Amino acid sequence: MITSIHNDRLKELRRLLRRRDGRFVAEGEDLLAAADAAGWEPLERYAAAGSALPGTEVEPELLARVSSLGSGTRALAVYRERWASAAAGPRCVALWGVRDPGNVGTVLRSALAFGAGSVALGPGTADPYGPKAVRASMGALFAVPVVRVEGLDELPGERIALVARAGEPLRGPVAHATLVVGAEREGLPDEVVAGCDRTAHIPIASESLNAAMAASISLYELSRNP
Amino acid sequence: MITSIHNDRLKELRRLLRRRDGRFVAEGEDLLAAADAAGWEPLERYAAAGSALPGTEVEPELLARVSSLGSGTRALAVYRERWASAAAGPRCVALWGVRDPGNVGTVLRSALAFGAGSVALGPGTADPYGPKAVRASMGALFAVPVVRVEGLDELPGERIALVARAGEPLRGPVAHATLVVGAEREGLPDEVVAGCDRTAHIPIASESLNAAMAASISLYELSRNP
Repeated sequence: MITSIHNDRLKELRRLLRRRDGRFVAEGEDLLAAADAAGWEPLERYAAAGSALPGTEVEPELLARVSSLGSGTRALAVYRERWASAAAGPRCVALWGVRDPGNVGTVLRSALAFGAGSVALGPGTADPYGPKAVRASMGALFAVPVVRVEGLDELPGERIALVARAGEPLRGPVAHATLVVGAEREGLPDEVVAGCDRTAHIPIASESLNAAMAASISLYELSRNP
Repeated sequence: MITSIHNDRLKELRRLLRRRDGRFVAEGEDLLAAADAAGWEPLERYAAAGSALPGTEVEPELLARVSSLGSGTRALAVYRERWASAAAGPRCVALWGVRDPGNVGTVLRSALAFGAGSVALGPGTADPYGPKAVRASMGALFAVPVVRVEGLDELPGERIALVARAGEPLRGPVAHATLVVGAEREGLPDEVVAGCDRTAHIPIASESLNAAMAASISLYELSRNP
């Protein structure tokens, strides 16, 4: 049992939560259960002493101090990052310049809910293995392949640029497509829109939706039965 | 110009951010612009000295210390809460036991995007005028009527209980309806489901969507052109 905050393994955990090295930390029983269910083997696992959870026991107060969650946590594990070698379809979401890690995590969750084959992370997009993205994904990170991409030619199927107003309203079902989604304020760069096969929008009465909401509704629409 | 953190008006602002009394604080130029656009008169308005924004000038460091935003803010205003006397349709969202203020704010934003007439807040639902909800609404709070309700009989149109698995897949368009949405984990209480006119779900491949996402996709579906 670990009883000192100066323990080398705890120090390592805290370091990993700030800056990773191909490994990342997942926190909370639900996330660890999602990892187990998806067949991810933890490199290390820690549990609050007395919790009966599997892992190296740690005094609960120490685990709470290591945790990046406000409310502390009773279980933590370290995993090796997995990156897909290519963006998989038949439906894919590509994020371009989406810097908010919470949005990236939420998109992973929606990708899992609506059956996307992968989430592609274009230039300027937040790291899906950062603590906030991992948490927002609610475990979807362990089930949906992620891949870094540099150009649109790496994306499967018809490339649909999702924009605020231009193009046609998005209509599903579409069997083979990548939805290309930009950040809420900036939208997609002109050259990215121009490089896509077509442009579409979600019809809304207000100014904008956030990137995660727009991506989620679009995925829903693409997979919707007619 | 306010130059002391001990200034009475600043103290009052900090107190209002913690506990309100029929008034609430909105932070950030975008939110204040949304309030102006919707015709809300601030009771008081504060701006960082040198910013050329309207309002009582405050030293920028002091304004940042008062702000509930991590990054500080250049503009703040105090408004009187507005509560609708009844839940308006033709389409309405009713939240039941949704304790997360970020979800409440996001639902307000989606309600505005997809033309809901009001958002009804049932028992155990977070306050839409709390700082997190106000921020997550991105100004939608100033445009969508909110109302506290105690029972389902206060809701307009057909009452549709949104659940994880039961009932039919939700299909739009539906002209007159209230979507009744529960918290992500707990879902809706049995008696609330039983009291609705019907039950519907969003078809998903994974375990769950969060309340805000489920409400947003449902509103989209209800207002979708066939």
